[in-house]
Amino acid sequence: MSESLRLSRRTLLASAGAGALTASVPGRAAAAGPDEAPSGPSEAREVDVAIVGAGLTGLTAARQLKQAGRSVHVVEADDRVGGRVWTVDAADGTPVNWGATFVGPQQTRILGLAKELGVGTYKTFNTGKNVQFFNGNRKTYQGTIPAVDLGSLLELNTLMSRLNGHASSLDPAAPWAEPRAKEWDAQTFYTWIRTNARSTQTHKLLDLACLSLFSVESQEIPLLHVLFYIRSAGSLQVLLNTGNAAQEQQFDGGSQRIPELMAAQLGDDAVTLSSPVRRVVTDGDRTIVHGDGVTVSAKRVIVAVPPPMIPRISFEPGLSALKDQLCQRSPMGSVGKAVAVYDRPFWRAKGLTGQATSDTGPVKITFDISPGSGTPGVMMGFVDGQDAREFGVTSLADRRAAVLEQFTTWFGPEAASPKEYLDVHWDSLEFHRGCPVAVPQPGAITGYKGALSAPEGALHFACTETATRWSGYMDGAVQAGEVVAAQVGAAL
Amino acid sequence: MSESLRLSRRTLLASAGAGALTASVPGRAAAAGPDEAPSGPSEAREVDVAIVGAGLTGLTAARQLKQAGRSVHVVEADDRVGGRVWTVDAADGTPVNWGATFVGPQQTRILGLAKELGVGTYKTFNTGKNVQFFNGNRKTYQGTIPAVDLGSLLELNTLMSRLNGHASSLDPAAPWAEPRAKEWDAQTFYTWIRTNARSTQTHKLLDLACLSLFSVESQEIPLLHVLFYIRSAGSLQVLLNTGNAAQEQQFDGGSQRIPELMAAQLGDDAVTLSSPVRRVVTDGDRTIVHGDGVTVSAKRVIVAVPPPMIPRISFEPGLSALKDQLCQRSPMGSVGKAVAVYDRPFWRAKGLTGQATSDTGPVKITFDISPGSGTPGVMMGFVDGQDAREFGVTSLADRRAAVLEQFTTWFGPEAASPKEYLDVHWDSLEFHRGCPVAVPQPGAITGYKGALSAPEGALHFACTETATRWSGYMDGAVQAGEVVAAQVGAAL
Repeated sequence: MSESLRLSRRTLLASAGAGALTASVPGRAAAAGPDEAPSGPSEAREVDVAIVGAGLTGLTAARQLKQAGRSVHVVEADDRVGGRVWTVDAADGTPVNWGATFVGPQQTRILGLAKELGVGTYKTFNTGKNVQFFNGNRKTYQGTIPAVDLGSLLELNTLMSRLNGHASSLDPAAPWAEPRAKEWDAQTFYTWIRTNARSTQTHKLLDLACLSLFSVESQEIPLLHVLFYIRSAGSLQVLLNTGNAAQEQQFDGGSQRIPELMAAQLGDDAVTLSSPVRRVVTDGDRTIVHGDGVTVSAKRVIVAVPPPMIPRISFEPGLSALKDQLCQRSPMGSVGKAVAVYDRPFWRAKGLTGQATSDTGPVKITFDISPGSGTPGVMMGFVDGQDAREFGVTSLADRRAAVLEQFTTWFGPEAASPKEYLDVHWDSLEFHRGCPVAVPQPGAITGYKGALSAPEGALHFACTETATRWSGYMDGAVQAGEVVAAQVGAAL
Repeated sequence: MSESLRLSRRTLLASAGAGALTASVPGRAAAAGPDEAPSGPSEAREVDVAIVGAGLTGLTAARQLKQAGRSVHVVEADDRVGGRVWTVDAADGTPVNWGATFVGPQQTRILGLAKELGVGTYKTFNTGKNVQFFNGNRKTYQGTIPAVDLGSLLELNTLMSRLNGHASSLDPAAPWAEPRAKEWDAQTFYTWIRTNARSTQTHKLLDLACLSLFSVESQEIPLLHVLFYIRSAGSLQVLLNTGNAAQEQQFDGGSQRIPELMAAQLGDDAVTLSSPVRRVVTDGDRTIVHGDGVTVSAKRVIVAVPPPMIPRISFEPGLSALKDQLCQRSPMGSVGKAVAVYDRPFWRAKGLTGQATSDTGPVKITFDISPGSGTPGVMMGFVDGQDAREFGVTSLADRRAAVLEQFTTWFGPEAASPKEYLDVHWDSLEFHRGCPVAVPQPGAITGYKGALSAPEGALHFACTETATRWSGYMDGAVQAGEVVAAQVGAAL
């Protein structure tokens, strides 16, 4: 299985060598056979627990239930395991994370899992100065304090403290229970920023923080969800920083090695790939999961997919109105990633970390994601929110030109000629609909409370969005898997 | 067909005679045969245009294309035509509109259509005083001016003028193009109300207006969409009022007579009911619509379902990222309707219109929806937003008791003993997911612009949400159908 998973890594990759500009647009996933499968023969399985989705949550749950002596089967729509953890190989074989990339020392669950599986980590390159590109001017600065005027800095500091303070009052398992929750859920983060900060520099920096965390503009998210996210991680600083924070480390060989090794441990026979689940039918004490080419009969089913993917399945009996409407109110963020591979990370020799922030797109945030060896040099740019929407409808040639122009302005002329340019557009992927995380809309958290994770009959629900610690991260996905496995174990 | 449609009207109706309280909860729609159909034989059709959805939009388009000499076939998930236009019969045969009910003199498209089909209208009873129940106190008032202090009234008047003024600056075909659109899209209506009004009475009245128009709380909707809605209708007053406004009239025999007659004109053979469309596959110059039990091959396909229903279909090739993400950001409102049938409209003799507004639920707005003859008396209560969420998880006995207690407080002891109590919960209907209309979330209109109605290959999209005049209403549904029919006619 490991081999076939690795072969599939290049699926969907929009790649062009430096001399090979093509006009191909990052496409919608070539749907894995829904056209053929319904008419083809369907393999029948019978297990204790069927799991929909082979992301970190589903695989964690499957692994834990198997260790407890339960029989499991995982059905996955993509032709690979990992879900939002997806690593592709650049032309020279360098692993590039299209999905979840970074891990911080506070994220003990995913770090523990990686250690158990023998997947090492290395530190994200973070020595030197960062680049800031605001109002057409390039500046550099050291550490985490951006190059803005003192007044804006003080204001930013005050507001970050206020956000951390509000967040600390939340119960991450019931953020709706805080007395001020309704007020916080009734306003967008955009409104809160403009109400509380006078400096347009502060507005810009907090808008950028929002983009970098959620891949949505600050008007697309309620304050309450920002506060929940901060609470679930610990502080805004631990979310945003690199050293001793969420961007500190990366996994040797790419993040997807973790789900690949988990799937390999489950066994070839326990995961069906390229099998989008279309229907889940409960009849008496059995529930049947209908994927393309496979039918799994189980006592319990774990639906381990992000909120916007849940209602794409036909459930019989139907989902509760509360869960269905909450899923309607939890859209995925909008994100692309643009990567340039160079012979070496040339910016390091210039005293630059490779981290940049910009107030103009398509790329507004960059990171050095070179392998631990330092060779080749890999520069990654996030394309978030409105930029991602516009990025998704331009040609590969235009995307490449726009991104490399930005990299050149920020890091120097060497950036213009990478060995390879590649990018991905998550919004276009049929089985993802966006990334990195679903964002509950204003009023949804207080209106629907815990409806997302509530079991319904034989159905259980888990994803990084249901986590209470590092929700939205790999660590949260593992926590969600552990919680649902315990829940199902107790119900069996 | 007309006969079978009428028979199906009682589907999903949670009904209990006065003496027959049952514990049944308004259920998720008994899914129309997805379990059987995929394995059963599928009828194959070949037409010029396939239409997904037999609501007013789909039927208008089908009718217009047929009149232009095109062959059409309509595939509908429900076991009835009408979509959000749905009339059931009370035990005594009185038609009760579960869905769209009212029509105003400005709504010339739907009125013209009704006239053409021979469906008459009658005036909503509007003589006497309205009831207002705020802070536990019952007051009555005449006309459209609520019973609040003068300061609040003046403030309300100022704010309504301001909303109308802002709205008038919008192009209803491109609300995102207004220079202030981004600012208006970045804040919730809740925020706008609290920023602009000091009186809590004003807050309450505008929150209630929001609930009554969209069935969402004011925190669940951006200001820009409220303004678009006002613009598309003409003014806030024409949306909210009864006389000479959107609630002025009702259709003899129930609104669903219109789609029923339209379907009858199309012919028995042109509509397949109980056939949820699962997949739509374009291959060369034909597109195949796969419904349960029917497969329609067409040159063009009109997807005439509300935004949250669109992505429940698997499209090959996939939907554009823009349309798919906009649909993720356009949840349906949350709404139930509770109806009590009395021998006579006893409130009329007391000098009451039967119209009440309340600041406590489950019912916050009522209307006299008795037939034009005035017999029997039918009182209808809207259960909107948060109230609808809570209503949906209580028993029929509890719902009946709560609603009749409210009706009794407002209209007198006679209200306690109806001939029949019935209710519906749209959020629980698998093929609707809520009602009356999809609400774009903050940032969506400016972020995704016209993506909802943009054709994609052989696919065209229309629903009342794509209308520019009376969007969200029956009139808008007809307009949307006319527009898409012209678009498809030109493309064929």
